[in-house]
Amino acid sequence: MSRVLILGADGYLGWPTCMYFSQRGYTVIGVDNYFIRNAMKELDCEPLRKIPDLSQRARLWEEKSGRRIFVHIGDVTNYDFLLSVFKEYMPDTVIHYAEQPSAPYSMINRDKAAFTVINNLISTLNIVYAVKETNPDCHIIKLGTMGEYGTPNIDIEEGWIEIEHKGRRDKFLFPRQASSLYHTTKIQDTDMLWFYIRTWGIRVTDLMQGPVYGIYTDESREDHQLITYCPYDEIFGSVLNRFIVQAVSGYPLTVYGKGNQIRGFLNIIDTMQCVYLASINPPERGKLRIFNQFTETFSINTLAEKVKNVGEKLGYHVTIEHLTNPRVEKEEHYYNVCYTGLFNLGLRPHYLTDEVLEEFFKFVETYKDNINREIIYKGVKWK
Amino acid sequence: MSRVLILGADGYLGWPTCMYFSQRGYTVIGVDNYFIRNAMKELDCEPLRKIPDLSQRARLWEEKSGRRIFVHIGDVTNYDFLLSVFKEYMPDTVIHYAEQPSAPYSMINRDKAAFTVINNLISTLNIVYAVKETNPDCHIIKLGTMGEYGTPNIDIEEGWIEIEHKGRRDKFLFPRQASSLYHTTKIQDTDMLWFYIRTWGIRVTDLMQGPVYGIYTDESREDHQLITYCPYDEIFGSVLNRFIVQAVSGYPLTVYGKGNQIRGFLNIIDTMQCVYLASINPPERGKLRIFNQFTETFSINTLAEKVKNVGEKLGYHVTIEHLTNPRVEKEEHYYNVCYTGLFNLGLRPHYLTDEVLEEFFKFVETYKDNINREIIYKGVKWK
Repeated sequence: MSRVLILGADGYLGWPTCMYFSQRGYTVIGVDNYFIRNAMKELDCEPLRKIPDLSQRARLWEEKSGRRIFVHIGDVTNYDFLLSVFKEYMPDTVIHYAEQPSAPYSMINRDKAAFTVINNLISTLNIVYAVKETNPDCHIIKLGTMGEYGTPNIDIEEGWIEIEHKGRRDKFLFPRQASSLYHTTKIQDTDMLWFYIRTWGIRVTDLMQGPVYGIYTDESREDHQLITYCPYDEIFGSVLNRFIVQAVSGYPLTVYGKGNQIRGFLNIIDTMQCVYLASINPPERGKLRIFNQFTETFSINTLAEKVKNVGEKLGYHVTIEHLTNPRVEKEEHYYNVCYTGLFNLGLRPHYLTDEVLEEFFKFVETYKDNINREIIYKGVKWK
Repeated sequence: MSRVLILGADGYLGWPTCMYFSQRGYTVIGVDNYFIRNAMKELDCEPLRKIPDLSQRARLWEEKSGRRIFVHIGDVTNYDFLLSVFKEYMPDTVIHYAEQPSAPYSMINRDKAAFTVINNLISTLNIVYAVKETNPDCHIIKLGTMGEYGTPNIDIEEGWIEIEHKGRRDKFLFPRQASSLYHTTKIQDTDMLWFYIRTWGIRVTDLMQGPVYGIYTDESREDHQLITYCPYDEIFGSVLNRFIVQAVSGYPLTVYGKGNQIRGFLNIIDTMQCVYLASINPPERGKLRIFNQFTETFSINTLAEKVKNVGEKLGYHVTIEHLTNPRVEKEEHYYNVCYTGLFNLGLRPHYLTDEVLEEFFKFVETYKDNINREIIYKGVKWK
């Protein structure tokens, strides 16, 4: 059976991915340096629930499932460490979640910007070298973000575009122009991967993911100890998680600017499916395959309305507040994206229904006493 | 009078640029960390002549011209150091030559690849932050490279392209797809600059330069001590410099592959002009202005033939040898580039005439005994 190396295994997506592959019989190796845990402490934005550390979670999972996840605590930017893990396990697939994943974090100051650049690019570079050195057949699945494309005035294709110019044609990476330094590092890592793919013939899937929401996956539904983070703070939280925590705690839903920003969203269950579908359908050697990974698009206003409606049905008084946008981004824009690739591989989407929102509200209610209103909005500004 | 901060002031282009601005009455501050000197020692590829260090050269220049160049030895990736220099001198213009400039160097191994990524991106990031923190009006002139574009099958425009796609239009950075990790870091730094330009309204000129040849500039012609490096080795040398050294030392001119690779070349005298023209015509705040910086295009075969013809006129027996290409690049390709921007600003080109080649031959002849044939080709391979 295949061996899957998951880098960033302690994160919001990393740990559910470990369980997902483990449940399906894969040998799973999880690596993390606890960056997110430490940064959450440093920035005083700890998540809704205390989460057992990665080794503890692996033990809990083994007790429940009888399946072992191999855990290594270390830094992917340390090449000797990473290479030793590759040599020990010889993975067939490596899933790269080990990038600094927060846009606001990358905008706090120069040190955090520099950390984001170095962490995200050197981790990717090290993976490329480790794959080349140990097993050039190994399939690299790298998480990108829809934010790399920004909001161009043309349809967004799935990673590539054929350009006709002055009577001649060629195919290029779709133009990307992001609205945070973090998102920019994701453009940069793709350019780096694409260079080494052409030069060394490695194989890579780049998953251009939209904002993810939700906390339950099939492997964690019956054991709260196995559930992933629910970050709701300004730095590491994502928008829907934050809205639900705000609704439950009587804090206005904070919409940045006009709220007509449109994004493609997906349930964490579908992230699991997408990563899995990519892994069992690897691209050829020498290919950069790109998928746009989300299941439906909403404006931020629509999302806030959905949360307000369900919240009020559940007896909460929910208000919506438009803040001066701390970010620099277009608040009115064209947005038409192709996202058929993963559906063609078999993705069965879980849409954002009222039932999904209700279940999410109930989860947050359970931990209501832990909500720290101070961390919801601290005002990291782009300018 | 304006203050110009030149980062990478000890390099092939940096030092002549220091003298060029100094001669025109600017206050010039030169910063370098001696990376190139140290790397040349480490890799056993020292240049044709021993070059006084930057402080010594500044003293020699002051003796000759009566003009002072302020020298600071330090690392641009050290933000505290860089910020202290900005605060001390408050430059109006910063010229960024402080990137690791060698494609083969970036391909030697993982450590040198990682160094290239970190050095090139963190130096650029630090400049952006220092400009924002001290004087957001300061004009950043960043050296890019024509190699960023690669060899697409469409005309290469000057940095930007208007794309019409499915009946809608938008303007984007011209697609870039480089053929070394070094060149890829130059794509990455442009993406980073472009993000901060849009977000913070700084002003940047990106000079997409082709391979530079030559050693004399007006400020150094009469004093050999002031002449810049003539690197001819495989790692830091550029192709024409290397061909002339090869011709003089009876070593076959080493053409990589078929030699039909076409590139845009320029004389180092024209680099001085281009950088100066960019500096006296700064773009508006919030603009990324891009120029394609070269004066004429040749295939590598044409270049080799030119050197052979002039060499034989001077009595050398010159042969041309096609090596298996150590690089991964197209050896037959379409190449039609727009490069009118700098001409519109007033560039008066110095073309590669037989006289220019003869003068270059004579310079190399003077140092013939220093030529180390061992360092011309060591075989750094892309694969």
